Amino acid sequence: MVVREKILDMVVSCFKRHGAKGLDTPAFELKEMLTEKYGEDSMLIYDLKDQGGELLSLRYDLTEVPFARYLAMNKVKKMKRYHVGKVWRRESPTIVQGRYREFCQCDFDIAGQFDPMIPDAECLKIMCEILSGLQLGDFLIKVNDRRILDGIFAVCGIPESKFHAICSSIDKLDKMSWKDVRHEMVAKKGLAPEVADRIGDYVQCHGGVSLVEQMFQDSELSQNQHALEGLRDLKLLFEYLTLFGVAEKISFDLSLARGLDYYTGVIYEAVLLQTSARAGEEPLNVGSVAAGGRYDGLVGMFDPKGHKVPCVGLSIGVERIFSIVEQRMKNVGEKIRTTETEVFVATPQKNFLQERLKLIAELWDAGIKAELMYKNNPKLLTQLRYCENMGIPLMVIIGEQELKEGVIKLRSVASREEVAIKRENLVAEIQKRLSES
Amino acid sequence: MVVREKILDMVVSCFKRHGAKGLDTPAFELKEMLTEKYGEDSMLIYDLKDQGGELLSLRYDLTEVPFARYLAMNKVKKMKRYHVGKVWRRESPTIVQGRYREFCQCDFDIAGQFDPMIPDAECLKIMCEILSGLQLGDFLIKVNDRRILDGIFAVCGIPESKFHAICSSIDKLDKMSWKDVRHEMVAKKGLAPEVADRIGDYVQCHGGVSLVEQMFQDSELSQNQHALEGLRDLKLLFEYLTLFGVAEKISFDLSLARGLDYYTGVIYEAVLLQTSARAGEEPLNVGSVAAGGRYDGLVGMFDPKGHKVPCVGLSIGVERIFSIVEQRMKNVGEKIRTTETEVFVATPQKNFLQERLKLIAELWDAGIKAELMYKNNPKLLTQLRYCENMGIPLMVIIGEQELKEGVIKLRSVASREEVAIKRENLVAEIQKRLSES
Repeated sequence: MVVREKILDMVVSCFKRHGAKGLDTPAFELKEMLTEKYGEDSMLIYDLKDQGGELLSLRYDLTEVPFARYLAMNKVKKMKRYHVGKVWRRESPTIVQGRYREFCQCDFDIAGQFDPMIPDAECLKIMCEILSGLQLGDFLIKVNDRRILDGIFAVCGIPESKFHAICSSIDKLDKMSWKDVRHEMVAKKGLAPEVADRIGDYVQCHGGVSLVEQMFQDSELSQNQHALEGLRDLKLLFEYLTLFGVAEKISFDLSLARGLDYYTGVIYEAVLLQTSARAGEEPLNVGSVAAGGRYDGLVGMFDPKGHKVPCVGLSIGVERIFSIVEQRMKNVGEKIRTTETEVFVATPQKNFLQERLKLIAELWDAGIKAELMYKNNPKLLTQLRYCENMGIPLMVIIGEQELKEGVIKLRSVASREEVAIKRENLVAEIQKRLSES
Repeated sequence: MVVREKILDMVVSCFKRHGAKGLDTPAFELKEMLTEKYGEDSMLIYDLKDQGGELLSLRYDLTEVPFARYLAMNKVKKMKRYHVGKVWRRESPTIVQGRYREFCQCDFDIAGQFDPMIPDAECLKIMCEILSGLQLGDFLIKVNDRRILDGIFAVCGIPESKFHAICSSIDKLDKMSWKDVRHEMVAKKGLAPEVADRIGDYVQCHGGVSLVEQMFQDSELSQNQHALEGLRDLKLLFEYLTLFGVAEKISFDLSLARGLDYYTGVIYEAVLLQTSARAGEEPLNVGSVAAGGRYDGLVGMFDPKGHKVPCVGLSIGVERIFSIVEQRMKNVGEKIRTTETEVFVATPQKNFLQERLKLIAELWDAGIKAELMYKNNPKLLTQLRYCENMGIPLMVIIGEQELKEGVIKLRSVASREEVAIKRENLVAEIQKRLSES
């Protein structure tokens, strides 16, 4: 819970840094709305029992679909928003570690008609800031464009009816060899071997902006209008990413397909780069930790008059990030504090509850996070041990001697050093120590 | 959404200041668990459709019931936790302004066997800190004890079967006169007039610690073991509240009943004091904004072996607080910023997108909240107006002249003052200005 909170704070503060406002959509959606959009995934949706009124379902997703619906319903033409919230799925085959029914999603989207690729570049910049900030290790963002994929498929002569099936094979290239993927496409999906080979020449390519240039030189692909538009946009995207100082994190990867139908332009997916597990460590289960893309047609599908609002967005895979960070902390044996208490108010003597209460109220009123033992006469050793166990850094101790002299003993729990401090200076001294640590 | 976020932040930071850890419980509960505990309120619970597996319902409440169940299930004997989350009700007659189906709850609870009234006093201190911190105006916390109420009822000769009915009449004393309440008790609830009069003598009393002393002198009440225990605890509570510096906010109010059966000791409820509406202002719909009490038996009800864990807690009525604050801001015509953007990156010239992108990346990387227009060639006036409309305090302007001289113009949007600042000093200067404002 503490780890989760820190990660979410970090993600949200990045979204705010980029000028997004928080937008909360309700946990319920009309059942038919959801069923329509998610196709065969609908069986994963939690429905509410029919207790009268409309048929409702629990929010399945925070991402593009509810946001697009919100924009269409409220006739919003321009918006930069983030949403952090829970979604519910009856069972999720995509989650590797355990089958969650309730999990957290973090989304950021920019809606509106703007000059090309500026918001798209900002989305990628945001992904870089978040992944660097969370210190998850080295990462790479694969970028492709839906229109380039369409162009490649057309050039290779793949019928549109096979688009999804072939995309899902290509998507496996990060886990399977080309040989195996090719076999699947030919044997299971009925692609002619020569068509498979042609597509193989493309989808095994990945690189930087030079690969974009190379594709421009491809005599066939550059004849395809869709592919050409995609390539032009990617070129511009790389230019902006260079200005943002993140181009070296981006890889133009022709195998990136992303299943969802509603993407219309650039698509991207961030992956953590596998570092070989150190001795005694569980190998980390890495993979995609953030993804998104451009979806210019989705709002129009929800708008009664079909008015379009171009959108681009991203989703941070926080559940996966939670487990990676937790696994990592476990590996290094790091102990996580569950509270933020800064100061513990203690006494070595009996009948000092009143003084302790007066003292802790002073600390609370000064905004200092403080605890005491809910006992009339606690033992000093018990109080010391509590601080050590809970990782509380400072202890203030009041007893007869201190009361007489108008001082308080301030103890560093780690170093065991104690100093006497005048009562009137205590709050300032504690604040000074806390700001230094 | 922004107002809500600020209020919740403030509440959570208070809970953390008091050493609580965040504890999240799932949005679902087993249907039978909920139905059992909420009695006739069960019809307000959202059930999930039977799609196989257990019958589930949506979380109806964050407060005592799920927390007690958590403690019992996990055999936790001691815990200080807070929970902020959403609950769902099919329709809620208790909400005055609108019938919400989804709303937010904020709870804080202390579980464990401790010396008497120390955690209870801390709960009241927390309520004071939060209500003062939110600057909602003057407030009062009514305090009573379930055992004192039981004692009064016994002394007056009210049969136990009428306990609930009479409590609910008494609860209306803050809105109705004693005469009307008495009439209800006699005419509708079948209480003998002389019994009603006796109870009236008690429940019309409220005051400070002196009223506790006065009740000790009551020859009949002080014979009642339950009442005596309650009075002793309240006396101790007032002593601790005085040490915490909040006793003047607390009123011992014998009419405070709080319906819920599971309270076993002290109960409390915070109310905002009505201030007469100023000219042209909507009168504020004030009332209870926080409440809670001690519930020592609830964990035992969930524990298979009946092991008890004493608990005391509180719940902040954030939905009501949200509407009060929003209403107030509307009254004074205060505009709420929906974003936190600190700096806008602008240019007066064409073809300066690249320079703007480079500059804004520098700001983002320094943690500064910054925006720019997603246009290749925006007009300066449009950029200025955007800052004014959105309440962005600072603008950095880059043009040919600035680029040549290696400076950036920093403009205060409010005062319209502009100064040229060396590019390498820009981040430091912005941070300085932001920390001063």
